[in-house]
Amino acid sequence: MSDHVYKKVEIVGSSRNGIEDAIDNALRECARSVQHMEWFEVIDTRGHIVDGKVAHYQVTLKVGFRVETA
Amino acid sequence: MSDHVYKKVEIVGSSRNGIEDAIDNALRECARSVQHMEWFEVIDTRGHIVDGKVAHYQVTLKVGFRVETA
Amino acid sequence: MSDHVYKKVEIVGSSRNGIEDAIDNALRECARSVQHMEWFEVIDTRGHIVDGKVAHYQVTLKVGFRVETA
Amino acid sequence: MSDHVYKKVEIVGSSRNGIEDAIDNALRECARSVQHMEWFEVIDTRGHIVDGKVAHYQVTLKVGFRVETA
Amino acid sequence: MSDHVYKKVEIVGSSRNGIEDAIDNALRECARSVQHMEWFEVIDTRGHIVDGKVAHYQVTLKVGFRVETA
Amino acid sequence: MSDHVYKKVEIVGSSRNGIEDAIDNALRECARSVQHMEWFEVIDTRGHIVDGKVAHYQVTLKVGFRVETA
Amino acid sequence: MSDHVYKKVEIVGSSRNGIEDAIDNALRECARSVQHMEWFEVIDTRGHIVDGKVAHYQVTLKVGFRVETA
Amino acid sequence: MSDHVYKKVEIVGSSRNGIEDAIDNALRECARSVQHMEWFEVIDTRGHIVDGKVAHYQVTLKVGFRVETA
Amino acid sequence: MSDHVYKKVEIVGSSRNGIEDAIDNALRECARSVQHMEWFEVIDTRGHIVDGKVAHYQVTLKVGFRVETA
Amino acid sequence: MSDHVYKKVEIVGSSRNGIEDAIDNALRECARSVQHMEWFEVIDTRGHIVDGKVAHYQVTLKVGFRVETA
Amino acid sequence: MSDHVYKKVEIVGSSRNGIEDAIDNALRECARSVQHMEWFEVIDTRGHIVDGKVAHYQVTLKVGFRVETA
Amino acid sequence: MSDHVYKKVEIVGSSRNGIEDAIDNALRECARSVQHMEWFEVIDTRGHIVDGKVAHYQVTLKVGFRVETA
Repeated sequence: MSDHVYKKVEIVGSSRNGIEDAIDNALRECARSVQHMEWFEVIDTRGHIVDGKVAHYQVTLKVGFRVETA
Repeated sequence: MSDHVYKKVEIVGSSRNGIEDAIDNALRECARSVQHMEWFEVIDTRGHIVDGKVAHYQVTLKVGFRVETA
Repeated sequence: MSDHVYKKVEIVGSSRNGIEDAIDNALRECARSVQHMEWFEVIDTRGHIVDGKVAHYQVTLKVGFRVETA
Repeated sequence: MSDHVYKKVEIVGSSRNGIEDAIDNALRECARSVQHMEWFEVIDTRGHIVDGKVAHYQVTLKVGFRVETA
Repeated sequence: MSDHVYKKVEIVGSSRNGIEDAIDNALRECARSVQHMEWFEVIDTRGHIVDGKVAHYQVTLKVGFRVETA
Repeated sequence: MSDHVYKKVEIVGSSRNGIEDAIDNALRECARSVQHMEWFEVIDTRGHIVDGKVAHYQVTLKVGFRVETA
Repeated sequence: MSDHVYKKVEIVGSSRNGIEDAIDNALRECARSVQHMEWFEVIDTRGHIVDGKVAHYQVTLKVGFRVETA
Repeated sequence: MSDHVYKKVEIVGSSRNGIEDAIDNALRECARSVQHMEWFEVIDTRGHIVDGKVAHYQVTLKVGFRVETA
Repeated sequence: MSDHVYKKVEIVGSSRNGIEDAIDNALRECARSVQHMEWFEVIDTRGHIVDGKVAHYQVTLKVGFRVETA
Repeated sequence: MSDHVYKKVEIVGSSRNGIEDAIDNALRECARSVQHMEWFEVIDTRGHIVDGKVAHYQVTLKVGFRVETA
Repeated sequence: MSDHVYKKVEIVGSSRNGIEDAIDNALRECARSVQHMEWFEVIDTRGHIVDGKVAHYQVTLKVGFRVETA
Repeated sequence: MSDHVYKKVEIVGSSRNGIEDAIDNALRECARSVQHMEWFEVIDTRGHIVDGKVAHYQVTLKVGFRVETA
């Protein structure tokens, strides 16, 4: 981990099933455009309600990934 | 979503089973007095410990609901 | 202002026209169920985007009102 | 404390005498409309000044109360 | 809104005319590189002063946009 | 902007007309005692309510000004 | 309270006797250089400990005062 | 709960399985050195990513425990 | 105060009588296991309610103490 | 600075040597993909410890850069 | 430190050389108008970038100074 | 890093020489009583002023260390 540089992107995943599943969905999508993802931080947890029940959990993450330095 | 107005109430749900279940319990109770619930925001997650283990998760939510305008 | 007691409610107003108008809409609705409103605090300003433009401003307020003490 | 649900209201008490007395005034008023109050959290402490001295302390509380579940 | 994923970017718009106009300018520029913008959150409002008057409002936004999932 | 030093003062402007006008009023007053004002930051936006409508917007600013160094 | 402008100063009062007394001491000193003080906000409460007991409470306030406009 | 005193420690639990399991792991370890644990507060939720997926959830807790007073 | 090192512990004191008394109770207990306490910071003030009145104030402190360096 | 628009990216630089050097490393890497960088804000300072000593400082920055408008 | 009163001012120092040097520059300037400075608190660290490198560090401080009481 | 548990302690280091040196002093002292230190987080940076100059930097850290699990 000598002199690495990391960037962070903010992403929101949603899921009908729960908080961990919303995180998984966010990371799966993020992996399509970002390499070398190393960690995530949960920034916010919320959700939509339909007919008095949770319809979707929505979890906002910051995802840190290593930048390949020259 | 033209010129709607929403109110938010703060509610704490608890559950022996987990965080999502505590959210469900809060919403089920909230639905008894509030109509048109549309979203929730997790404000705080904590719990009680008995004999060194989680006895109850306690999740504080803000619940947003649409007000029927005249 | 001797020994008055105040309560605060959280309300979200929306408007196509601007931030001040969203505040007005929130207060107009709030006035239907609350008397003696005395002040508001802007908690959050956000909005929806449609076709790349602001469709609605959404302003979250706390509204303080005086409780008539016995 | 099995699967209870709690709600929280935000209230501002004032007093000429001090911070604890402002809390007492807020709770006394709150008790007129809310049952089963269980805890309070001090959110903000401020006051009005008249002739260079404290005229009233104003203490903002969140008050948590148990909801009677069906 | 089933299992969508959203990303958020942070952008600062400026305007001589006012806060809403600075938001518009930020969104117009953002729309040049980002599709499916759905909401914005105001993070910070500030401005430059020239000759004792507001020369430019500067509004920092987070803009959320939907990612097209495979 | 080599080795300049800046001070910041906190000021509250009010206006019947809107948020930008409250900022203008704060800066106009501030300019009477402070020179070289360079930027402002909005810290808080609130207002008074009379008869269910906004009577005054109150905007708290921090104003930064350059100190003439020896 | 039409178009008044207010400034705020930050001040720390200390007292051997308690929190309210530290506030009083801060305001008494502040009144020597500032006129038209209207409100205070408690920002921080701390203190020094000597021999395991509170030696002084230290309360940091923001004090708002009205500026006489031209 | 008369005049009890509590201390709080900050602890980070990790788990491959989920957020609740990370909390359990933290409490199990904490119980080895601390007695009379009464509550926990979730301070932060994050995790490590390996090959684009969550490898471990990491949950930071504050754990409150009662001190046996003389 | 040359090159001293300090540690901080988090502790919650409670009292039937008031905020300052809860601070005293926390420090008295803390002094049983910690030497060279130098300052405290109030982190949170809350309390339990019984029969509509304050039963106990609960004040969370951080207490800083000097470590005897080699 | 008329009607410019800025974007902000979040980046983490690390260095064995110190905080300023970690900032330099972050900016050097950022400059490879971003033009017109104008300012940075330090969001977080932390580091890794090996054998009881700082192995790397890690400084999280937000970097603001001007967007070339059409 | 019996019943002293302190005031705090907010000041921004800048330097080409580093964070500590920016603090020194702020204090040197502050000392020209303020006596009895006793402590500072770093509120914000940022800087300007020119040609992809740090041109100036800018450190915002609160400086506390003792007020000579009558 | 499978199912490790970490604890965090809060410590304040001081130094005449600079921020990094204050961090070093805090870690050196912390290492006398804590094993397996893995990371630190800077929580607060402040200092004492004597004769208008920095006498000591004081840096508050949280230090995370791995707990040896059974």
